[in-house]
Amino acid sequence: MTESVARRPEIAQCGAIALGTPKLETSLTFFRDTLGMEEVERVGDTVYLRGYQEMKHHSLVLFASETPIVDSYSFRVKRPEDVELFYNELLAQEVEVVELPAGQQAGRGTAIRFVVPHAGHSFELYYDIDAPQAPEEISSKLLSNSSRRRGLGVRRIDHYNIQTAPDNVGKAEGWLREALGFKRREYVYVPENDFLIASWTSVTSQVHDLAIAMSLTNQNAQLHHVAFNLENHSDLIVAADTLRDHDVHFHCGPGKHGIGQAMYLYLEEPGSGHRIELYSGNYHIFDPDWNALGWTPTNPDGMTWFGQELDVSQDGSMSSSTDSVSSLTPLIGQPQPVGQA
Amino acid sequence: MTESVARRPEIAQCGAIALGTPKLETSLTFFRDTLGMEEVERVGDTVYLRGYQEMKHHSLVLFASETPIVDSYSFRVKRPEDVELFYNELLAQEVEVVELPAGQQAGRGTAIRFVVPHAGHSFELYYDIDAPQAPEEISSKLLSNSSRRRGLGVRRIDHYNIQTAPDNVGKAEGWLREALGFKRREYVYVPENDFLIASWTSVTSQVHDLAIAMSLTNQNAQLHHVAFNLENHSDLIVAADTLRDHDVHFHCGPGKHGIGQAMYLYLEEPGSGHRIELYSGNYHIFDPDWNALGWTPTNPDGMTWFGQELDVSQDGSMSSSTDSVSSLTPLIGQPQPVGQA
Amino acid sequence: MTESVARRPEIAQCGAIALGTPKLETSLTFFRDTLGMEEVERVGDTVYLRGYQEMKHHSLVLFASETPIVDSYSFRVKRPEDVELFYNELLAQEVEVVELPAGQQAGRGTAIRFVVPHAGHSFELYYDIDAPQAPEEISSKLLSNSSRRRGLGVRRIDHYNIQTAPDNVGKAEGWLREALGFKRREYVYVPENDFLIASWTSVTSQVHDLAIAMSLTNQNAQLHHVAFNLENHSDLIVAADTLRDHDVHFHCGPGKHGIGQAMYLYLEEPGSGHRIELYSGNYHIFDPDWNALGWTPTNPDGMTWFGQELDVSQDGSMSSSTDSVSSLTPLIGQPQPVGQA
Amino acid sequence: MTESVARRPEIAQCGAIALGTPKLETSLTFFRDTLGMEEVERVGDTVYLRGYQEMKHHSLVLFASETPIVDSYSFRVKRPEDVELFYNELLAQEVEVVELPAGQQAGRGTAIRFVVPHAGHSFELYYDIDAPQAPEEISSKLLSNSSRRRGLGVRRIDHYNIQTAPDNVGKAEGWLREALGFKRREYVYVPENDFLIASWTSVTSQVHDLAIAMSLTNQNAQLHHVAFNLENHSDLIVAADTLRDHDVHFHCGPGKHGIGQAMYLYLEEPGSGHRIELYSGNYHIFDPDWNALGWTPTNPDGMTWFGQELDVSQDGSMSSSTDSVSSLTPLIGQPQPVGQA
Repeated sequence: MTESVARRPEIAQCGAIALGTPKLETSLTFFRDTLGMEEVERVGDTVYLRGYQEMKHHSLVLFASETPIVDSYSFRVKRPEDVELFYNELLAQEVEVVELPAGQQAGRGTAIRFVVPHAGHSFELYYDIDAPQAPEEISSKLLSNSSRRRGLGVRRIDHYNIQTAPDNVGKAEGWLREALGFKRREYVYVPENDFLIASWTSVTSQVHDLAIAMSLTNQNAQLHHVAFNLENHSDLIVAADTLRDHDVHFHCGPGKHGIGQAMYLYLEEPGSGHRIELYSGNYHIFDPDWNALGWTPTNPDGMTWFGQELDVSQDGSMSSSTDSVSSLTPLIGQPQPVGQA
Repeated sequence: MTESVARRPEIAQCGAIALGTPKLETSLTFFRDTLGMEEVERVGDTVYLRGYQEMKHHSLVLFASETPIVDSYSFRVKRPEDVELFYNELLAQEVEVVELPAGQQAGRGTAIRFVVPHAGHSFELYYDIDAPQAPEEISSKLLSNSSRRRGLGVRRIDHYNIQTAPDNVGKAEGWLREALGFKRREYVYVPENDFLIASWTSVTSQVHDLAIAMSLTNQNAQLHHVAFNLENHSDLIVAADTLRDHDVHFHCGPGKHGIGQAMYLYLEEPGSGHRIELYSGNYHIFDPDWNALGWTPTNPDGMTWFGQELDVSQDGSMSSSTDSVSSLTPLIGQPQPVGQA
Repeated sequence: MTESVARRPEIAQCGAIALGTPKLETSLTFFRDTLGMEEVERVGDTVYLRGYQEMKHHSLVLFASETPIVDSYSFRVKRPEDVELFYNELLAQEVEVVELPAGQQAGRGTAIRFVVPHAGHSFELYYDIDAPQAPEEISSKLLSNSSRRRGLGVRRIDHYNIQTAPDNVGKAEGWLREALGFKRREYVYVPENDFLIASWTSVTSQVHDLAIAMSLTNQNAQLHHVAFNLENHSDLIVAADTLRDHDVHFHCGPGKHGIGQAMYLYLEEPGSGHRIELYSGNYHIFDPDWNALGWTPTNPDGMTWFGQELDVSQDGSMSSSTDSVSSLTPLIGQPQPVGQA
Repeated sequence: MTESVARRPEIAQCGAIALGTPKLETSLTFFRDTLGMEEVERVGDTVYLRGYQEMKHHSLVLFASETPIVDSYSFRVKRPEDVELFYNELLAQEVEVVELPAGQQAGRGTAIRFVVPHAGHSFELYYDIDAPQAPEEISSKLLSNSSRRRGLGVRRIDHYNIQTAPDNVGKAEGWLREALGFKRREYVYVPENDFLIASWTSVTSQVHDLAIAMSLTNQNAQLHHVAFNLENHSDLIVAADTLRDHDVHFHCGPGKHGIGQAMYLYLEEPGSGHRIELYSGNYHIFDPDWNALGWTPTNPDGMTWFGQELDVSQDGSMSSSTDSVSSLTPLIGQPQPVGQA
């Protein structure tokens, strides 16, 4: 009636990105008051936020930092035992991995941390995380909201887009698929030599939870952007209107990607300079036998279906990115001096 | 590094609903020309349609019938072997099940058919299905579209909502969860006696692929509605505007459910009288440990968050429904006379 | 080359409504913080607000009052001399009229005040009004905005809807057209006896700046609602979503009127109980020879094209309304005690 | 009670643009089937169309022509006698003007035609025009619609944007204001020498019924674009999505102008090459004392508030335009050979 198989650990979803910012209060004001995220907890110079449809403790960590840097990209695994199963698999592959104690990020249980081979980004995996109630003054009557819709209506984190040196994209993406189970959904490649330029991968029905693309400046461990989800295209248009009047610098958009069929607005987060994407729409993949869709660089429809074109030249508005930490030691969650937290 | 488990078969997604209609051409015109679905294939008095973002052969089967009837609700399974694994599991549970040959629904491989215990609806499970290309005149330049967006923009089937006698809801829903793997996401119940009134369940990140609720007329094997997905709330508003001017009878809407946080428009399909829902929005569940959200009937927010209220009284506009076939013998796909198809 | 005609004074646009509220701070919070209007000036217990696309001093006056009452509906005239021309015309018709000194409403020049015959509402006409700049912290980079878009995006006042006793509607509407120049755009009437139930009239390209309808409770001098304008239907949907979660009581909507082709959301202002409409869409009339469109009560399309139906029964959610002052003496703008303002 | 003034004739609204097209059937398919306009009448190789909210006979004339050319921009005047009053005023100014007989454009009464001084465009003025009913199969239940909403939802013509040689802009715009009564609403100018680059003018509450700007190629009598109105920003996004998949070439957009606060999509009409704008939003001016808003070329917010930037360089995508006829003899409406019409 059933067959017996060896079960491998699985990633369930994006967890949280930890962004270092030289201007913590400016960044916090942007995410909390303008975008409408909830400040769930503050520990010293580290602030934890989530969108109004996120039940868990946080999907964004902001911490004070001299330079804009990404400390970690975290993912939640599917079952409690998957943290340890992944730990063992990584060790077996001779990927260095450390265990982070519960509370290293506030509200979170034990996690593991490692650096993605060929890419250089620090990833963290965990299962346990608190699901705190929002304070009364922003509580929602909708059971599926953790708080009321506010500000520009960011409801959850959507995906990470990371960059590595051109020669590493294919190797890193292959590793992400084989070791972590990300499925390739759409990709851009050079047909002549099968060279992979960018790949959109997911563990959910989203077209991407994680995209990886080549760095035009030939660097590993780069953030291209982290995206937050809005409910409708019209929310993105209102966000553009509002942010433009707040003097927020736009890198590109609004427009619509052919890849993913989602609308985008790329902007420079005013406190840190990290590139943030506001993102709406996109189709969902429920087909279990989805064939990854391949685009060539000569077909402009994939990147820009309509709207302001992504300038992906080396000096263009979309080429810059911020560095990610490549280290087993996180920058946040260090023991606090007595009495501080 | 991995653990060994017995793997059970899994359902991947909604497949297709097969609707009998007394006025085939009227129904076809509605779904194809007004809603914008593609007529993929016609075999005698049976027509196969899909939305513009569906790659597979069909998600809707319309067939000529004296009365409006639902022949089957089908689902696609996750892996080729899951059809047989489910067949064996059902037999072991003493649920009658038959095998339908490839082509019984055009474009589809071997399927199995059974009647849902306590509910009476005929379900079909399959894996293999063709993925035909749309004809040039409606082809899309977007690789993730099977055809161009047309009409009111129906992009895919969304979910089924079925009804059974009040005393059977709890039993049927329990069976769907245990035997087929649907996960309860939200539900309405009477807290005093833990009586289940309705449940929204899914195998995907959707809040529901399949909802089951009690029939006010105390009948099993009822269709409450089948829903088709639109991209944005604004598409639903335009659809309401347009359909109203086509003299389509609305049962309810537009409005927004608290449950699922989606916008709805319930209407009477002009050829058959089946209730169709146009549906946009809804949140996605990526949390692996989602706790089903329980609503009580005294809390109106769940059913109607805003907009026209669902009239769920026995004689109300939302109580009527059409019958589903409760039989192992499908009404469609019979052998065609030589030369007809 | 030109012909010589006697020029009559003309009304240019809606000015401001002055609403008395038993809970001034609650009302102010609602209009300013939730709807996003600007608090331009406060004089004692009277607060002046405007939408983000209104250049002039105010379109809404809130004043502390024991009961919810409308002190006045004001309109701006087309030319400076039209205030006096209207004054003379009213006197010649033996309509009582008084002059209000500059500053009686803050920021406003000389106005005249009279009670509308057959209706009982106190109207005020003026031309001069300040156009103050918004403070830096909410200023807009768009020259056509007085401040940045904020909150739910109320950009301007849209129209007044007033009620009088059934027998008076025809007479009052006739007077408004003849004496004040309002043009009838759409109307509901009983064809058998040509009885006027409601009329939508304007001096601009809007379908209505002023609507008048019969009171189901047979009272003169009633406010049915005052409407504020949002840019898009999608803004109205977001407003409904947000306000519902703030426990604001909805009288009706969202839905779309056939008359005017606009979307509506009627709600009870939480501080005062006055009915407020949020309003988006509507067509504009540029045809100089527009024929008023007549609807009969048996045609439901006019009032409710789609969405929640207006309940216009005597006890229904849409029948209640608040009283308007019928007096030549305004309730606001009295001399302030020394040192208060 | 009233004062005696000399009344001058007034323009009420945009009437129709007459576009010559080398591919009449392609152009007709585009406007009728894709954009959703109604083909009201066809006389030989001339076709008359209107939007679904236009009551009058036509707002667009398509006629077969070897080259893409604009035959005329017409406007409707406010009163029947204004046609003759304008005729007399133009004669008095020594502007050549001819009378066109009723029926020269189908459905239209007597018109006058002249060439705009300093600009070179042929303008026509008329009052009488038929208001035919749409055929049953597209009729609307809404009294304010001439037909049902169809296609991408073009509801009416919105405005003309014309170009003339740089040195002529100021002179032509001054003439349009003084002779025809257009009011300046917003403008772009060089502050150093008060040089007028572009001006948005209207006779209605719209920010512009007619814009005039300098030609980068130093030519008079150029069309920059003609705009058609959509109800919501979301309609424009859907239009972009759909048209992109029809291989319609976009010149620019979607995006939002600071000037007018409207969303734009500029495209090349596939049959003729004329530039068409789809246009949604914009604020309305009801203030009788509106001060024209002046922008400088160094402030990019006016032209592009967000979205794809207008490329107004000489070789840019937005610099090209099509020629307008500068002649008192229209190209259409000539006597038809016997038996043709």
